[in-house]
Amino acid sequence: MRQAIHQISVPTSGKGLVEITRPVRGWVEAQGMSSGLLTIYCRHTSASLLIQENADPDVRTDLESYFEDIAPESRNYVHDTEGPDDMPAHIRTALTSVQLSIPLVQGALALGTWQGIYLFEHRSRPHRREIVLHLLGD
Amino acid sequence: MRQAIHQISVPTSGKGLVEITRPVRGWVEAQGMSSGLLTIYCRHTSASLLIQENADPDVRTDLESYFEDIAPESRNYVHDTEGPDDMPAHIRTALTSVQLSIPLVQGALALGTWQGIYLFEHRSRPHRREIVLHLLGD
Amino acid sequence: MRQAIHQISVPTSGKGLVEITRPVRGWVEAQGMSSGLLTIYCRHTSASLLIQENADPDVRTDLESYFEDIAPESRNYVHDTEGPDDMPAHIRTALTSVQLSIPLVQGALALGTWQGIYLFEHRSRPHRREIVLHLLGD
Repeated sequence: MRQAIHQISVPTSGKGLVEITRPVRGWVEAQGMSSGLLTIYCRHTSASLLIQENADPDVRTDLESYFEDIAPESRNYVHDTEGPDDMPAHIRTALTSVQLSIPLVQGALALGTWQGIYLFEHRSRPHRREIVLHLLGD
Repeated sequence: MRQAIHQISVPTSGKGLVEITRPVRGWVEAQGMSSGLLTIYCRHTSASLLIQENADPDVRTDLESYFEDIAPESRNYVHDTEGPDDMPAHIRTALTSVQLSIPLVQGALALGTWQGIYLFEHRSRPHRREIVLHLLGD
Repeated sequence: MRQAIHQISVPTSGKGLVEITRPVRGWVEAQGMSSGLLTIYCRHTSASLLIQENADPDVRTDLESYFEDIAPESRNYVHDTEGPDDMPAHIRTALTSVQLSIPLVQGALALGTWQGIYLFEHRSRPHRREIVLHLLGD
């Protein structure tokens, strides 16, 4: 049993879902393990991780619009010094998650047919987001 | 230290919470480990996993009714080709999670007294849901 | 590769976020591992775990107020025998999570600069919450 750790930096161009399945899978497969556990960790409080449908891009449009409505910029926030999109970003992060773990089975991530891994950027301006990948297995 | 991996298929009969504590615990205990980490992974984007109260069934009724309201079928979705319950199902999955990890302590899952493990089906029609169990420990 | 398991008991004084970064980090560092995976597990169904900003306390005020509104006590619940704050507590737990995993990299938790680990108490009265810490690594 052994561990491998890696960090990727994901550029975002404002609010929205950025698929990261390919770089994550690429790194995992390069470690040559047959079974294990991958943990993906987002080192931020205004961006999060999501497993979602990777087929119809309309799903992403609806998800983005939904989170825009459920944690609106128009709400009255005490914390408003970092811009109107900052506190909604913290809330959207709380409603989703900054961490995901996915088993590795027979050399492949156990993602379902329609599952993609997404970074969910909640701020309006472009950012670079640091994502830690931790793989444990043999 | 070693790993064990298993997949269970859970039949659902439309929207609602299906308790899976018993089959999960049964498989874990059969592995004969004393300490470790169990990861439960749902391979879908319209069903999720939840730890919730296993005592009063009314809790499940209220949870189901709450998620029905917070991500309603009546909302205007762009993605509507798979039926009015599909996009709400993706949203409810995003608001909960497709993955749970639970420590194994002295041969038993560290579930609290009132905690049960549930598969949360978000589609109206019956489905079979694939759940991967990954156990790491000794 | 080895495991370490610990349980901490966190006193809460009613609804709100209680930072637990310090005791968690203290225990992790005392295990003397250089890389690994920490899993934090909350053994309750009316309290949860959250990674959030540890800088401006206003963020916590806004988060608490937001969750008060999104799962209000005023909603009509079937399950109401344990008080008006009980069912909202289960919902807020479902919308956040009872489990978090954080990689350990070069002897330190991979928390981002602004990330703190919080126990989110959802009940009105003070409680003692049991949190299990599971560390795997070498």
